Amino acid sequence: MKRRTVLGGLLAAGVSSSLGRHSRAATAAPGRRDHRVIAVEEACQIPEIHAALKRLAGNNPPSMKTGPIAGPFVAPLLDLGEGRVRAMDADGVDVQVLSITSPGVQLFDAAEAVTLAALANDRMMETVRKYPGRFGALATLAPQDPAASARELDRAITKLGMNGAIVNSHTNGEYLDDPKFWPLFEAAEALDTPIYIHPREPSPGLEGPLWMPGFIVGWAYGVETGTHALRLISAGVFDRFPKLQIVLGHMGEGLPFFYDRLNNRFRFETAFSPRSVKLQKPPADYLKSNFHVTTSGMNHWAPLAATLATLGIERVMYAIDYPMENQAGEVAALAAFPLSAGDRRALCETNAARVFKLKA
Amino acid sequence: MKRRTVLGGLLAAGVSSSLGRHSRAATAAPGRRDHRVIAVEEACQIPEIHAALKRLAGNNPPSMKTGPIAGPFVAPLLDLGEGRVRAMDADGVDVQVLSITSPGVQLFDAAEAVTLAALANDRMMETVRKYPGRFGALATLAPQDPAASARELDRAITKLGMNGAIVNSHTNGEYLDDPKFWPLFEAAEALDTPIYIHPREPSPGLEGPLWMPGFIVGWAYGVETGTHALRLISAGVFDRFPKLQIVLGHMGEGLPFFYDRLNNRFRFETAFSPRSVKLQKPPADYLKSNFHVTTSGMNHWAPLAATLATLGIERVMYAIDYPMENQAGEVAALAAFPLSAGDRRALCETNAARVFKLKA
Repeated sequence: MKRRTVLGGLLAAGVSSSLGRHSRAATAAPGRRDHRVIAVEEACQIPEIHAALKRLAGNNPPSMKTGPIAGPFVAPLLDLGEGRVRAMDADGVDVQVLSITSPGVQLFDAAEAVTLAALANDRMMETVRKYPGRFGALATLAPQDPAASARELDRAITKLGMNGAIVNSHTNGEYLDDPKFWPLFEAAEALDTPIYIHPREPSPGLEGPLWMPGFIVGWAYGVETGTHALRLISAGVFDRFPKLQIVLGHMGEGLPFFYDRLNNRFRFETAFSPRSVKLQKPPADYLKSNFHVTTSGMNHWAPLAATLATLGIERVMYAIDYPMENQAGEVAALAAFPLSAGDRRALCETNAARVFKLKA
Repeated sequence: MKRRTVLGGLLAAGVSSSLGRHSRAATAAPGRRDHRVIAVEEACQIPEIHAALKRLAGNNPPSMKTGPIAGPFVAPLLDLGEGRVRAMDADGVDVQVLSITSPGVQLFDAAEAVTLAALANDRMMETVRKYPGRFGALATLAPQDPAASARELDRAITKLGMNGAIVNSHTNGEYLDDPKFWPLFEAAEALDTPIYIHPREPSPGLEGPLWMPGFIVGWAYGVETGTHALRLISAGVFDRFPKLQIVLGHMGEGLPFFYDRLNNRFRFETAFSPRSVKLQKPPADYLKSNFHVTTSGMNHWAPLAATLATLGIERVMYAIDYPMENQAGEVAALAAFPLSAGDRRALCETNAARVFKLKA
């Protein structure tokens, strides 16, 4: 039924709006929507982490690794108050689910990272409380200290009332498939709260050929983060933690495009390879039981349609990646998607409310 | 116009056939088609390269790196005669465009690679001549010796009448964006013949986190080869050789899914990065002027529909990856795609005939 709706929407779209880049021209109709717009990967920063990243960067030239520590994004990232709310009102965003901009606290030594993560979580929740109904927030974590991360996740959900957690892919070149990080998954599953795996620059093991200026965010981020997700599947994380829910941005970092090929070639490789991976089901099938994907930076119709056809509407959520993407343009793209009213509401409101347990 | 046809086809498809994995159940109707089925990434092997790869592997356990040197694919790969033609007849394939299975001759020292490449090209053309109208062939090249490669490409096209060339991604960890390889592009452009960049296992600079048994072909191959293609764009290869045509298998190795994001984030990164890449147009736009993609291993409707909507029907060609994929199943998937007659013919016949200059 869901898929029929998607395909019907595709027809209704006509031709030009089937291409996301054309839909930029469409006009949102604020105030005439029958749903809220919840955007779930919206970046912010606190001055203490900003200062620590600048200290770490020292006199080196600006780098993708530290995230935006200079330039036009610093001010909107640091604004957790009136300016942000005004931009949301102007652009037609009802709710932002906040997270500290990549790479979060994952560049620091463990002790400093743990302290800064807790501070960030307290600070984001001040904003959530100050503007009722306008914000949710994902807990910043310091995977450098897995036990402390698990405790902070517990505090974030049970004491602070946060809506999940976020990890910016690798930490010191290590991925969460390493069992030393699994206390974090155990806590997330017990707390019934999702973990968003957000990109950062590729790990040292990947960065060589991928390091092309101009193509880091558009390609290498997806490779890094899609690979991270597959490492979790490959390591049996979801057989061990069957209720664990991972969220991937950027339309699932390309994994929906390769859905059938992943299963097909997994069968092929495990049949003919002497080494063998034991999984309870075909690998891509975990995308439909343990993952949700968001449209951050990918509010284009062709990849969205393919993703809806592959994963189903219930596993896809709307996101913008404010302030790195143009918020007004992304809301206009959403308005132009040829979706039924029910599917549109699922995409931009009810799925997010359910997954992140957002209060209305 | 082309896009309207694709979307119309999507509607006609109904629901279940929108998913490639369901369309396996569909039945091809051999003999009742109004078009030929040309499959353009069909693997073969010659005994001399097979023996050289076995010698190279020595007593090591079987590895993805050498390709199929043992197991069930060896016999069909080595069959360049009656058995192959019988399988094509049984499965409904009119024409196979042959290429030596990955990694071709790219593991050998330069002198041996050059000799084996020429032998492979002579041998494939014996088959092409023996079965008129049933085969085309792509020249095996030895990028280890760029000048010799360029000469062999010239011989392959002008003397042997081959239909293009194939390179299996990196050679000793180096990609074709290195200007030392550009004599090959210069020759290809002058000869007006396409170069197919086929996957092999990731280069040493990428293989660490990507080395997941069960996910090498389904994911790492795409990362390796998609990255290779972007390196060509990034290096300005297509500004230097504007008529050069590259073919990518596996539905463009994921690049069509990221089409708009690649352009969007390229603008972002080059605006804010002190280092700068000079290109004559947005990077993904080169996919529509200098690339064709094929459906090898990706005969699934969701990624095909997204690719058609992004690149247009004229840049997409049908392929199977015989014998590694099930030829009959892939032909059935083709028959089940909800395409107009014109688009279907373009996909599986006329585009390939044009790009590879195949004789009818």
